[in-house]
Amino acid sequence: MKIVVIGGGAAGLGAAGAAKGANPSAEVTVYTEFADVAYSPCGIPFVHGKEIDSFERLFLATKEQYVKSGIDVRYETTVDSVDVATKTIQVEGEGSVGYDRLILTTGWLYQDPAVPGTELDGLYRVKDIRQAMEWDSVLDTTKKAVIVESGFIAMEMTTALRHRDIDVTLVDPGPWPMSDVADPEIVEPVRQSWAELGVNMQWGNKVTAFRGEKSLTHVETDSGDVTADLAIIGTHKVPNNRLAEAAGIKLGTTGGIIVDSHMRTSAADVFAAGDCTEIPHGVTNVPLQGLSGSHAYAQGKTAGVNAGSGERQYNPVYVPWGMLAGEWMLGGVSFGETTATALGLDFVTGLANGITRARYYPGTKTITVKLLADPSSRQLIGAQMVGGEGIKERADFLGMMTRTGITVDEIATMENVYSPAIGALNEPIAVAAQNLLAKL
Amino acid sequence: MKIVVIGGGAAGLGAAGAAKGANPSAEVTVYTEFADVAYSPCGIPFVHGKEIDSFERLFLATKEQYVKSGIDVRYETTVDSVDVATKTIQVEGEGSVGYDRLILTTGWLYQDPAVPGTELDGLYRVKDIRQAMEWDSVLDTTKKAVIVESGFIAMEMTTALRHRDIDVTLVDPGPWPMSDVADPEIVEPVRQSWAELGVNMQWGNKVTAFRGEKSLTHVETDSGDVTADLAIIGTHKVPNNRLAEAAGIKLGTTGGIIVDSHMRTSAADVFAAGDCTEIPHGVTNVPLQGLSGSHAYAQGKTAGVNAGSGERQYNPVYVPWGMLAGEWMLGGVSFGETTATALGLDFVTGLANGITRARYYPGTKTITVKLLADPSSRQLIGAQMVGGEGIKERADFLGMMTRTGITVDEIATMENVYSPAIGALNEPIAVAAQNLLAKL
Repeated sequence: MKIVVIGGGAAGLGAAGAAKGANPSAEVTVYTEFADVAYSPCGIPFVHGKEIDSFERLFLATKEQYVKSGIDVRYETTVDSVDVATKTIQVEGEGSVGYDRLILTTGWLYQDPAVPGTELDGLYRVKDIRQAMEWDSVLDTTKKAVIVESGFIAMEMTTALRHRDIDVTLVDPGPWPMSDVADPEIVEPVRQSWAELGVNMQWGNKVTAFRGEKSLTHVETDSGDVTADLAIIGTHKVPNNRLAEAAGIKLGTTGGIIVDSHMRTSAADVFAAGDCTEIPHGVTNVPLQGLSGSHAYAQGKTAGVNAGSGERQYNPVYVPWGMLAGEWMLGGVSFGETTATALGLDFVTGLANGITRARYYPGTKTITVKLLADPSSRQLIGAQMVGGEGIKERADFLGMMTRTGITVDEIATMENVYSPAIGALNEPIAVAAQNLLAKL
Repeated sequence: MKIVVIGGGAAGLGAAGAAKGANPSAEVTVYTEFADVAYSPCGIPFVHGKEIDSFERLFLATKEQYVKSGIDVRYETTVDSVDVATKTIQVEGEGSVGYDRLILTTGWLYQDPAVPGTELDGLYRVKDIRQAMEWDSVLDTTKKAVIVESGFIAMEMTTALRHRDIDVTLVDPGPWPMSDVADPEIVEPVRQSWAELGVNMQWGNKVTAFRGEKSLTHVETDSGDVTADLAIIGTHKVPNNRLAEAAGIKLGTTGGIIVDSHMRTSAADVFAAGDCTEIPHGVTNVPLQGLSGSHAYAQGKTAGVNAGSGERQYNPVYVPWGMLAGEWMLGGVSFGETTATALGLDFVTGLANGITRARYYPGTKTITVKLLADPSSRQLIGAQMVGGEGIKERADFLGMMTRTGITVDEIATMENVYSPAIGALNEPIAVAAQNLLAKL
């Protein structure tokens, strides 16, 4: 059996490895337009910010390891088209290549800002590691930068550029940071820590043009010009589906490829995984696109197992998320108050301010947990958190609580570890649930 | 209504506060034999170890705060007896005191080592803060110490004494540290870090006598003498139920007071909470005694609400636990392999070694997760963990998974936060579940 994977990111390599695992005799080929695979693009902002000392450390596996495991990776290769009727793809310089099973993992692109001047030098879309290495030396001489919208990577880049002592102006059309996913009181500490770090913030403002001769010199916005020799494009992720669309594979409302629970697309023997797909949200059934590398990897493995004639299912998502932002960790699951209200969902909230270790133990950090529950089912529909540690683990926990429909009544009486060096007497998740129950 | 609480620990003060909250007009009196309430005894080892700079920092509330909230705390007072027929207690120096509702929160004692010499000076039972202050200056001149059995507090004291540069010998009858709760491969890193810290460890050995004139000079064991001017008694917690037993209140097989889901004892209008009670385990229904301060506090609140004529229920326990041990954090939920085997439970295990942040991110720590599941129900019966961070939050998570009966199949497909600074691509809990499933 010949399995072809288009795309060498987390989804693509997850798929290739899983296909080979499920069907060791299969011939597995991965086509990527880039010079590398198996590195962590999520680590790039932290190398720019000097938390990590070199780009080399972001590589997870060597090219030889793929050769050894029997996966044929074709680097710097462009796939021009897919023909699902003849089960072939057209590869630049290689011609027509047949497949028994095809897995599309073509990933994402930054949404086009759709304003004049996007062709200028000085616009940095953080994504590819080779480009990042080049941009890193540009940062050495950069004086003033504009961050265009507060997406996840852009948020991390904001902190990174300040660590490089670059003057930073953040321009975002929302009323507060990450307003499409986070509630204002939850991100307020982040906004404050950025203010302390000297970040200029322009909320409710929009970039209208990039200006300069050949290179960027300033950015025009609804509220005037911002001088800048660098712009970080932090717009939303959009699916990179030129190939799928041209092949007539069915796309959804988000522009992502529609897949079933086995990551099968509308075309026979064609699977898809990662940021080029859309996945139904577990609470609302609304399709989502542009999730995390962890989601992409798990979807890739599901697609790979099934393409290799194994059997694995992927579930609707509840999207636990988390990140470092300024001096804080932010995180959550599914919907905050802002999103839930926008979706017209009925909900009750419960908030708790707590601490992560005993009050007197060194290094203890504050943490705020906000839970949203459906007042009739008493199940969670989302959570929002900000704190100094333990955000990722709590987001994972609340993700499972949301997915499995555990009620707030159960959460309110959860047992928790109390040991001064690692946990406080009261778990803020339990207290938030108790406070929520008091309103029901 | 007159509500009397005997005992001023976490259970007692949780009960007093909750009783007053549920019934603000109630007269609430707390009798304690100690000079203080509302401090964290769990913090004592860390002050001895100099992680925390003073005992004063362990106090959570002042005596005035209790006065203000209308709770009458009687310090350094001995209750001689309880008469459940006449609903009175006998208080030394105060005489007969009536109650409408009584809450017993008399706590725990270290199990008597039951060997000669326990009356000698130089035997330290870590518990009371005033005594700890006195012992702390003794530690300044202590040269050699023996730790008698590896209970939780004794484990923390082992590290603390080495931080004070005291020569430490740990004598424990078990084959490895905390062998009654932890599996050998899970505690092995702790044993190693203690070895590196210069702790002498004698596993499978037993103290047979404490020797000396007036003060301890050496300890006799099954394998010879150990010179020591200090012995830390780290034996199991046993319930302190002299009063309850004399009053004819029904005790269980552990010696703990039997309570129902509302923390009611066998005597009318008498409640009990905390370490003097026994609570059924959620998996086996076997009664457990000697849980954490967090359990005591939650039980106290339940008893207090019900004594104050409110309504609150306490559930069977699954006991997520965690602690700092040497350079590591240890933790788990319910049963490890050793205990499950001893109980004759049928189980399958799944193990995963993971990391807590992206591999390349500074400060990333290793973490090992071992899950135990019932092969027929596919539900968790326990977990064991060792790692560098995120143990408490994962133990809480797995505690809820165990309690709510979420299957390993669900856990294996959990979503997880991936963001380099706070979480790795693969969550070790999910990988352990996948490895467990592979055996089913």
